Amino acid sequence: MRWMRFSDPADPKAGIRYAIVDASAGRLEVVRGDPFVRYETTGAVMDLATVRIEVPVIPGTFYAVGRNYQSHVDTLTAHYGQQQEAPRKPDIGYRANSALAAHDDDIVVPADATDKVHYEGELVVVIGKKVRHVSEEEALDCIFGYTIGNDISDRNWQKSDRTMWRSKNTDTWKPMGPWIETEVDLDAMETEILVNGATTSKFRTRDMIYGIARYISTVSRNCTLHPGDVLWMGTAEGSPNLLDGDVVEIRISGIGALRNRVVRETAPTAIADKKETP
Amino acid sequence: MRWMRFSDPADPKAGIRYAIVDASAGRLEVVRGDPFVRYETTGAVMDLATVRIEVPVIPGTFYAVGRNYQSHVDTLTAHYGQQQEAPRKPDIGYRANSALAAHDDDIVVPADATDKVHYEGELVVVIGKKVRHVSEEEALDCIFGYTIGNDISDRNWQKSDRTMWRSKNTDTWKPMGPWIETEVDLDAMETEILVNGATTSKFRTRDMIYGIARYISTVSRNCTLHPGDVLWMGTAEGSPNLLDGDVVEIRISGIGALRNRVVRETAPTAIADKKETP
Repeated sequence: MRWMRFSDPADPKAGIRYAIVDASAGRLEVVRGDPFVRYETTGAVMDLATVRIEVPVIPGTFYAVGRNYQSHVDTLTAHYGQQQEAPRKPDIGYRANSALAAHDDDIVVPADATDKVHYEGELVVVIGKKVRHVSEEEALDCIFGYTIGNDISDRNWQKSDRTMWRSKNTDTWKPMGPWIETEVDLDAMETEILVNGATTSKFRTRDMIYGIARYISTVSRNCTLHPGDVLWMGTAEGSPNLLDGDVVEIRISGIGALRNRVVRETAPTAIADKKETP
Repeated sequence: MRWMRFSDPADPKAGIRYAIVDASAGRLEVVRGDPFVRYETTGAVMDLATVRIEVPVIPGTFYAVGRNYQSHVDTLTAHYGQQQEAPRKPDIGYRANSALAAHDDDIVVPADATDKVHYEGELVVVIGKKVRHVSEEEALDCIFGYTIGNDISDRNWQKSDRTMWRSKNTDTWKPMGPWIETEVDLDAMETEILVNGATTSKFRTRDMIYGIARYISTVSRNCTLHPGDVLWMGTAEGSPNLLDGDVVEIRISGIGALRNRVVRETAPTAIADKKETP
């Protein structure tokens, strides 16, 4: 089953709602409520092409795994010019909700960002149950579904930002979507990343250094996981430097494709130019 | 004005609501809605002693400043046994909503935590307006009010956790409250921390390395700040090792006092012992 959050440009007062997607038929069935708490079908059917796809869930806590494929560690070693190590244990990090963007939203790169702005195509785990102290064997049972994330990063800022706030969490640098798929085959799953239609990376989910069950079980020893929390599971290989106008598409088998265009701002935005955004 | 989030143990169906606090009279005026979007008074008045104080706001993004007082940097140097530096620029970090706890909630320390579990008493800035690219001169205008945070940290875990997830974000390790005060005098403000009634730290807000306006302006160059976001502004000096039963109280002049008891678990919690929490 595919769950989407959407809004209707023709009916802005209706706000953001959930729907069940039938992608092959190009339509969605609108529901009342949300799948994490309670919902009921409304019988209303809409054309997928007429709606705006929204970020599929706003997480309570936004977890992100770093360096979870050996080929990504190798790529970082090349960029930093010094040997980088794979993590010795599954420590999890965090990203900011303020940076989330939807499928088809632009990835806006400020004028003072460097030339080394890169994609990271990631499988995103969406939690469905409140759990603490869950075993690896039972960890996958708390998952609601899976979506796709693009962990945009400025590699030069990443070297100098003590906390990675700017290098990872600049506005629009965390596209997520387009929807949440509840049934996948993790063992057969592949991620393919395309820039302007040409494949630039391809890797298997099963090549993770620490798998999904290991991360969920480990985190749950200290932290309660809540419905709607997301875990971004890391990326493999590297990325070309993203240029103005580049379209990045991340395809994960069984889920779909997350697509966003890169827009590089050409002039620095003056302080107070747009103090209060609409 | 003081804003509180509360629930009523005698009326659980009413859920969590906002109220305006009259602390000196020991009562609160219940409102409908919330102060970040729209509210209206209801005329209902309740006794402060009869309600449960909840975390005063669940942030969209939970920002935290590190090493923002020289005396804290000096203390970390002593703990780590090697020279620690003050940050060269105001980089901001993040904490997890999953770790939030309310005033009077217990700080639960897992059995496998080390002896070096410490408090960090912090002024918390609560954002009231959506802003981007705000100048230092105008930065304070986007603030809704101020509350108090306790950034509980395991110093030994902090050394070995690559991302500080466990050392800082274990469940209940981020008490925040008791309410949000909208009017304060930052220049005269002092933080006093007491363990079991005896003062252990005392410092002035104006001794921050980078002030509130500098942080807000800097963050807003890359990230939109939203109503309800919080910025924890860092702590000064150090903390004794917290023991089972210790009561930590953080008093900030003009705001109030955040008080929590430390409970150290004695036996490791087995995996799957409490798989799904209520």
